[in-house]
Amino acid sequence: MDQNIITQLESIIGKDGVLHTPEDLAVYSYDGTFEEHCPDVIVLPRTTEQVSQIVRLAAQERIPVVTRGMGSGLAAASVPFSGGITLSMTRMNRILEIDEVNATVHVEAGIVTADLQSAVEKRGLYYPPDPSSIRHSTIGGNVACNAGGPHCLKYGVTGDYVLGLTVVLADGQILHTGGKLIKDVVGYDLNALFTGSEGTLGVITEVLLRLIAKPTVARTVLVEFPTLADSARPVNAILAAGIVPATLEIMDETAIACIEEAMHLGLPLDVEATLLIETDGTDKAAVLREIEAVAAICRQCGARQVKVAENEAERSILWKARRSVSPALARKAPNKLGEDITVPRSAIPEAIRRLIVISAKYELPIVIFGHAGDGNLHPNILFDRRDLQQWNKVEQMVAEEFVLALELGGTLSGEHGVGMLKRPYMEKALGPVSIKIQRNIKQALDPLNILNPGKVFPN
Amino acid sequence: MDQNIITQLESIIGKDGVLHTPEDLAVYSYDGTFEEHCPDVIVLPRTTEQVSQIVRLAAQERIPVVTRGMGSGLAAASVPFSGGITLSMTRMNRILEIDEVNATVHVEAGIVTADLQSAVEKRGLYYPPDPSSIRHSTIGGNVACNAGGPHCLKYGVTGDYVLGLTVVLADGQILHTGGKLIKDVVGYDLNALFTGSEGTLGVITEVLLRLIAKPTVARTVLVEFPTLADSARPVNAILAAGIVPATLEIMDETAIACIEEAMHLGLPLDVEATLLIETDGTDKAAVLREIEAVAAICRQCGARQVKVAENEAERSILWKARRSVSPALARKAPNKLGEDITVPRSAIPEAIRRLIVISAKYELPIVIFGHAGDGNLHPNILFDRRDLQQWNKVEQMVAEEFVLALELGGTLSGEHGVGMLKRPYMEKALGPVSIKIQRNIKQALDPLNILNPGKVFPN
Repeated sequence: MDQNIITQLESIIGKDGVLHTPEDLAVYSYDGTFEEHCPDVIVLPRTTEQVSQIVRLAAQERIPVVTRGMGSGLAAASVPFSGGITLSMTRMNRILEIDEVNATVHVEAGIVTADLQSAVEKRGLYYPPDPSSIRHSTIGGNVACNAGGPHCLKYGVTGDYVLGLTVVLADGQILHTGGKLIKDVVGYDLNALFTGSEGTLGVITEVLLRLIAKPTVARTVLVEFPTLADSARPVNAILAAGIVPATLEIMDETAIACIEEAMHLGLPLDVEATLLIETDGTDKAAVLREIEAVAAICRQCGARQVKVAENEAERSILWKARRSVSPALARKAPNKLGEDITVPRSAIPEAIRRLIVISAKYELPIVIFGHAGDGNLHPNILFDRRDLQQWNKVEQMVAEEFVLALELGGTLSGEHGVGMLKRPYMEKALGPVSIKIQRNIKQALDPLNILNPGKVFPN
Repeated sequence: MDQNIITQLESIIGKDGVLHTPEDLAVYSYDGTFEEHCPDVIVLPRTTEQVSQIVRLAAQERIPVVTRGMGSGLAAASVPFSGGITLSMTRMNRILEIDEVNATVHVEAGIVTADLQSAVEKRGLYYPPDPSSIRHSTIGGNVACNAGGPHCLKYGVTGDYVLGLTVVLADGQILHTGGKLIKDVVGYDLNALFTGSEGTLGVITEVLLRLIAKPTVARTVLVEFPTLADSARPVNAILAAGIVPATLEIMDETAIACIEEAMHLGLPLDVEATLLIETDGTDKAAVLREIEAVAAICRQCGARQVKVAENEAERSILWKARRSVSPALARKAPNKLGEDITVPRSAIPEAIRRLIVISAKYELPIVIFGHAGDGNLHPNILFDRRDLQQWNKVEQMVAEEFVLALELGGTLSGEHGVGMLKRPYMEKALGPVSIKIQRNIKQALDPLNILNPGKVFPN
């Protein structure tokens, strides 16, 4: 990076906010995928005004700007393949206001989502979206990817909570959207446009979120199914009965075995699948009746056993199990590649059948878990990346997973985003007309293509 | 309109689908506002392909295209001020599929929303959004305006149910968005972009909607408040208690008096305000406990009486009252102008106080009712339009209502849209940066500015 640019960046945010040693560049070269590329410089702004000045300079000099939260992304959206400026939001992590009466929270984008969640819970409020990365990912990253999580079946995803944003646009101008308003139909829905735009349309610097009253009661069950296929059957039956569980997660036998091996929680090792189901609310009797109805439906659908968590300790064991799936898989193989396909709920059994076929065809295990209630599955391929033959197989398997999802009326991602990795499948997923108008929107908002260039859209 | 264009339109959809006598033009010249302007021709297509050909022709010939459902809009969005083609969607009113397993319905855009709602209810499914115009407005119009309604506090507005759209773009190309997917983060959120875009970005021809299981129990109360100011107090208290009523509607004394005068339902005539509150669900005991808790909170907040509807007949009387507000006001004055401001919930009492001041200042009654739970109020000015002095006052009063909303952190519309009428206030509501990028988006999708030209954006 030109020393003159470095000097200008330092004059905007101070020397301690600009990193450019080779070690720094290496540290900011990757995210949660296998991809890597060094930026030319990292900036750590503290204010929206600083972000504005940085982007203005970048626009002037035609330098790419890649916004980064905590780098936990699973689609390489924050890997700076074109070099340029990596704009790390981690120093913008303040809570600006918790409004208890209107049930809103206003934060800077770099706050870790779990920190936000615990701060509002202390006031009796609740921010439901809970991506598995919640303890290290930032709310800005969650908004940029429209993150989901196990509580999103009942409560909706990140985008359902975004009331307003502060966004630095591609020319450095500062945009404020929305407000503390439940209903607002004035102009186009810019909150929704920036949510899930993966850093390609603007730099999100502040987020205003809707909150709800914190549920006071939860009941959790682990349901054991002898066959994986049966385990998908209760999903529609439960929802058709008018019960919307907070959580309806599926884990297959390999997932369970990995967790049990790692954590010794007493999970069943002789079933093909388990469902983790939780009902919650503020009315204890109703929550209990709901979980009983859920249990009855599961039994009718072929469940062998429904284990009810009898107390908070037992409940936390079940959640510990679910939250440990991803790390636990690391014990089974040197590498894993977790995908994020979604299908219509009715297609879950067929999706599972086809994933098993793909696994058998390539002779590599696919562990299946995910948000069954939303039709959002995370097939994780286990492999050894040092073995080039295996890596080649993995690439073919992922392609087949995407074909599977699209053939069943599904799509490439439910909560991780497109980033760099799914670009080759975008045309097939959305069709040329959709790609074209999305490119037009990108061009309209970022005519110089400096914001996260090369991401989301096919080459 | 050039005879050559008429002939081409007739060749696309047949002679019976093209109207252009002076009588026809007059019939399609207005909507639910006081505005009027004749189109040059009306077309009544039956398929998306026909719409595509019509728009292609319009683009070629640079003719404005104004899409129209049933003309019940309250912001003049479908009044064709630039003439051109009015594209009436009323012949595209088929239900294409009800998918009971995935709980979705796929319809043509011209179906009346109540028809859609009753069709899915026969299958045990439920489409919650219920604008007061539900028996005559179309789902396409509801999507184009992101319509709300009294059930939207608990269940969300139209946009929360849109899973997919078929849209004819400004060049005649056909775009398909979304699918039967609860979660989908592939590319920009085009469903949300077209929802609420008031016909300026594309012609919505088909809609795929998410449904939920039909609630089986509802309990409804009418709560009487001696003072209007007190009536707003329970709103936040109820929500803070973790109760989300399906409905939380406010009606002031004039509204109640007008309904009572028209319908003789036995409504209280000696209180300043009433709240209509309904809880619903599938668990009878829980629904009952919720309504009891609601009643207790209302009493603590100064309610004089909480009347519980003891049976379905009593419940339907209360709903009949709420649904009749708008027509009942017609008895009180020759004309009314109903606005649609939203404010943060905490600002409702202050908004009401200021509306009373505006009414007193101009010596014209403002009737207040609306969706208190959402902070969405419909102040209705009663007047006689033949009296020019009154009409001038009304215009000033509306302007003051908008100032009031903006000063309290609110905005111009919660569910009616901007259309033609609120354009002068857009810059103040959104600021120049927002307006500029929205114009850029409009330009990107409709470079010839043929789709509903002149709407939404300030001159």
